[in-house]
Amino acid sequence: MDQLLNKIIEENRYLTELGKVADYIPALSKANANDIGLCFIDKEDNIHKSGCHNSKFTIQSISKVLTLILAIMDNGIDKVLDKVGLEGTDEPFNSFVKLDLPNIKKPANPLINSGAIVVTSLIKGDDFIRFQRIIDLAKFITNNNEIGFNEDVYNSEKATGSRNRAMAYLMSNKGIIDGDVEGILDTYFKQCSIEMDVVDLARIGKFISGGCKGLQVPTINNNELTILLKGILLACGMYDSSSRYAIEVGIPTKSGVSGGLMGVVPANRGIGIYSPSLDTHGNSMAGLGIIKALSRKLNLSIFNC
Amino acid sequence: MDQLLNKIIEENRYLTELGKVADYIPALSKANANDIGLCFIDKEDNIHKSGCHNSKFTIQSISKVLTLILAIMDNGIDKVLDKVGLEGTDEPFNSFVKLDLPNIKKPANPLINSGAIVVTSLIKGDDFIRFQRIIDLAKFITNNNEIGFNEDVYNSEKATGSRNRAMAYLMSNKGIIDGDVEGILDTYFKQCSIEMDVVDLARIGKFISGGCKGLQVPTINNNELTILLKGILLACGMYDSSSRYAIEVGIPTKSGVSGGLMGVVPANRGIGIYSPSLDTHGNSMAGLGIIKALSRKLNLSIFNC
Amino acid sequence: MDQLLNKIIEENRYLTELGKVADYIPALSKANANDIGLCFIDKEDNIHKSGCHNSKFTIQSISKVLTLILAIMDNGIDKVLDKVGLEGTDEPFNSFVKLDLPNIKKPANPLINSGAIVVTSLIKGDDFIRFQRIIDLAKFITNNNEIGFNEDVYNSEKATGSRNRAMAYLMSNKGIIDGDVEGILDTYFKQCSIEMDVVDLARIGKFISGGCKGLQVPTINNNELTILLKGILLACGMYDSSSRYAIEVGIPTKSGVSGGLMGVVPANRGIGIYSPSLDTHGNSMAGLGIIKALSRKLNLSIFNC
Amino acid sequence: MDQLLNKIIEENRYLTELGKVADYIPALSKANANDIGLCFIDKEDNIHKSGCHNSKFTIQSISKVLTLILAIMDNGIDKVLDKVGLEGTDEPFNSFVKLDLPNIKKPANPLINSGAIVVTSLIKGDDFIRFQRIIDLAKFITNNNEIGFNEDVYNSEKATGSRNRAMAYLMSNKGIIDGDVEGILDTYFKQCSIEMDVVDLARIGKFISGGCKGLQVPTINNNELTILLKGILLACGMYDSSSRYAIEVGIPTKSGVSGGLMGVVPANRGIGIYSPSLDTHGNSMAGLGIIKALSRKLNLSIFNC
Repeated sequence: MDQLLNKIIEENRYLTELGKVADYIPALSKANANDIGLCFIDKEDNIHKSGCHNSKFTIQSISKVLTLILAIMDNGIDKVLDKVGLEGTDEPFNSFVKLDLPNIKKPANPLINSGAIVVTSLIKGDDFIRFQRIIDLAKFITNNNEIGFNEDVYNSEKATGSRNRAMAYLMSNKGIIDGDVEGILDTYFKQCSIEMDVVDLARIGKFISGGCKGLQVPTINNNELTILLKGILLACGMYDSSSRYAIEVGIPTKSGVSGGLMGVVPANRGIGIYSPSLDTHGNSMAGLGIIKALSRKLNLSIFNC
Repeated sequence: MDQLLNKIIEENRYLTELGKVADYIPALSKANANDIGLCFIDKEDNIHKSGCHNSKFTIQSISKVLTLILAIMDNGIDKVLDKVGLEGTDEPFNSFVKLDLPNIKKPANPLINSGAIVVTSLIKGDDFIRFQRIIDLAKFITNNNEIGFNEDVYNSEKATGSRNRAMAYLMSNKGIIDGDVEGILDTYFKQCSIEMDVVDLARIGKFISGGCKGLQVPTINNNELTILLKGILLACGMYDSSSRYAIEVGIPTKSGVSGGLMGVVPANRGIGIYSPSLDTHGNSMAGLGIIKALSRKLNLSIFNC
Repeated sequence: MDQLLNKIIEENRYLTELGKVADYIPALSKANANDIGLCFIDKEDNIHKSGCHNSKFTIQSISKVLTLILAIMDNGIDKVLDKVGLEGTDEPFNSFVKLDLPNIKKPANPLINSGAIVVTSLIKGDDFIRFQRIIDLAKFITNNNEIGFNEDVYNSEKATGSRNRAMAYLMSNKGIIDGDVEGILDTYFKQCSIEMDVVDLARIGKFISGGCKGLQVPTINNNELTILLKGILLACGMYDSSSRYAIEVGIPTKSGVSGGLMGVVPANRGIGIYSPSLDTHGNSMAGLGIIKALSRKLNLSIFNC
Repeated sequence: MDQLLNKIIEENRYLTELGKVADYIPALSKANANDIGLCFIDKEDNIHKSGCHNSKFTIQSISKVLTLILAIMDNGIDKVLDKVGLEGTDEPFNSFVKLDLPNIKKPANPLINSGAIVVTSLIKGDDFIRFQRIIDLAKFITNNNEIGFNEDVYNSEKATGSRNRAMAYLMSNKGIIDGDVEGILDTYFKQCSIEMDVVDLARIGKFISGGCKGLQVPTINNNELTILLKGILLACGMYDSSSRYAIEVGIPTKSGVSGGLMGVVPANRGIGIYSPSLDTHGNSMAGLGIIKALSRKLNLSIFNC
């Protein structure tokens, strides 16, 4: 297996040259475009690693999965779906072309930026508690107590996040989010700055695939939560290329603009990938090549069922 | 099992009152809004039927799956994807708001009307041969040689199909379809008018789930075709409610405005449903309730994997 | 004056190199890109001509002014405005991005293609009579009985008009136009193919400026018709660059993709220009430079009032 | 004349019942829906007043004309047009559906909210100086040294202006505005809160009509500035109903959501109207009826030229 991972990394390394490291957050642009890290955790909990699997990076949009879990735990799924949709979208992750149309009452889904800001606003607690609970959930799921957040990236996001700020003020204006906009944004920028490595990401994938065991979710059972999260990830996890990715890869996955991919592999398995060179949708270029190859070689697509 | 089917039908019958039979094709509007037919074919090929399972109806958009298979057989998947995308869309099935945007080079996917008209244009043969091949494929897959098409519905569609006609002329103008627009439309209106019952639909679902056995597909193997079709159906099969349906039901499915649902159930199984009262997206209202209930009761969602 | 016209033509001749002759109608693409013809008719009916003022060309969209006058004569202004708006638009002349939005009930205005097709459908008479009446009006206004239409251009438009055809079928589908779509389109393609020279165009401009004398308009007086036409031309006459043109030139004007410009100059004057090299909006490139220069040199802008 | 004004007010008073006072700024919602004030200043500087012409109100969007003049004085027209367009728009005044489209580089025109925020950012000076210069210009033009701003309305706008705030952050993100977003917004909210009566508004209209005498405009002469302002007002002054208004009324006008109308009447005349009950475009309902009646009765439309 480890040989296979090494081989797949090498076969896809050329892709790092074709993409571009995110540069709209200055602190992200410092990443090494050629880095590739990969971790696959199998059913029996064997951890297979390859490449720079020790590199830490901020998880960015992958944090939206954590906040979605917390918001469902706090409010029940129905209340969350009062505020965000379950619709795919053909708009980029950070677009608000649609959001201001008169017939649009909520963001398309919880995994685009606007939807994720709403989800963060639904987590119970003040700003301090909210973020504490997000990072505690990250520690619980990954079983890694050393997870923290990167203050440089957080400050950089906060200073340059005028697009997310615009989106939040628009949603405040439309009554989609309540409360202090700047406080919600602060939590959002912090959650994006949580740092992990690919082993942590693969653990999140395996945790969801395995049934979200150990979470206290008042309104639905943990198996239903798993099915729901897998569905949302498959339908919406890769921004506006979610449909194509679902068809071609078939693994419920969330990407982040730092170059991370967190894959929920059927049958209690998980994948974590890191490679910061991105395609135009904001997804890791080599990461996509690698997970596609893994899906084919190891029959990981849910459409094999 | 048959008792379960009966029970689920009864529990969802009230939904037929909440929807509306399609009225934009006069011949369709004559359908009995309260009809519900259901067929489930299991792994061992047992056929479970309930309700008015003998009713015949035109398959409408479900025919898009047949033409997609033929177009892939004739051209290979790559050439088909030169002409239609694999993107989800938040526009209705018959919209062309997007199609005329300067940066849009092809329809979003092969299962919205514009994409399906393109797919039909890619099938080899003249107009007569094209339709012959579509209906022959229908007979082959369902193993039912009596399948024909409804001439009244066909004439009604042809006389009132100004929206599809507009779409086809726009695509001709943009160079997306070649050849005689009226001839392509004629085939398209005919394929929509093919008549089946729910057993035939369930057979199509089981055929795809079971690996598309017996088809000669030059460029990909039949298992890859199966994975591809299941992916496309899950991502795009239910028009603009595809994402929500994928998450909530998890069965690759195609709907038609006559009220049919054709479900590709994991593990070599198939579902056919007929109930002509529709929701605002053009999907069968009671059909949705029934397939959702079946998915939960029998754990049919692919997200159970 | 004649010297001034010659000088302005020469100063703007370089612009013919920067634009492009319309090529989507094959018969139009044969025009000589460097031709410039100009005619200014003053208050006292002196005709000032310069350049190739004898060249004949099809009037294309300028015909929309003639059909608008007929439709108002036949139906009254209120009935016409039931079917087309008086709104500016930022979409190109032949777009239908907007036309399919659910909240859009009619084309933005009578001078974009979709609106003009509706206007043609409102003229009384069968297809033969309709066109006869349009060309009779052209003869009356220009006082030129030799005006006819170019059969080559008409056939070329008809054969390649799939975009206008698409638009008409969509409007038929939405109930905006009644009657035989192909017949209405036939009249529309014919009216676009009416041939004139710049003197004829200037006469149309002067006719409108001078109060539309001699027309029988049942519902409004001729002076009100003049004010209305001037307003519509200023607000909508130059497609999606109407606002900028209104501000910079200030002369109610209609352009055509053959390169014609018909200007309604305040105080009973008219301008006709022909130069077939177009900008990206479909307006004559040198024509725009010339009329802007004329407006400044001779204080022709209505904003001088 | 005064009798005519009284009569026209009475004939249009019923319209105050059909509209709605702006309620999105709490301090505005306190206005008396039935108030109507009217002032017409003629060529010879006779001031004709009727209704509650002493009522003071905040000028809201009418302030955009003042800031546009200052921005042109400070930067020249070309630099201003680098940052805002001269295009009409069919979107509401406060929309940003368009603003986030990839091909849109600047707001449509200087009189919609997004464009006006940009214009404010172009005025030279720090935040304090900027506002000082705006109010000084208001005093100069109206020859009224007592003009001030309403601190309650300003505070109310600032507290509830999340839509304008969103728009400004989006434009900051897109590089359309430079500098401190909150400071620019503060000036913008203040300029909207400048208080006047209808006589002051009519003086602004007459000032522009009369040639903007006394202003020091480095790059164009004052007559050109007048022509430019009249063109921009006619094409863009009434939000998305500008075209219809231009055609039906023909007076370059700017409206504000407090219910003010400032009309630039040809031949050195001006109109000021106040009536806070608004139509769905945000224009004064009775105000529209009154100015339309005045235009017809007194032949004020520029299309009479």
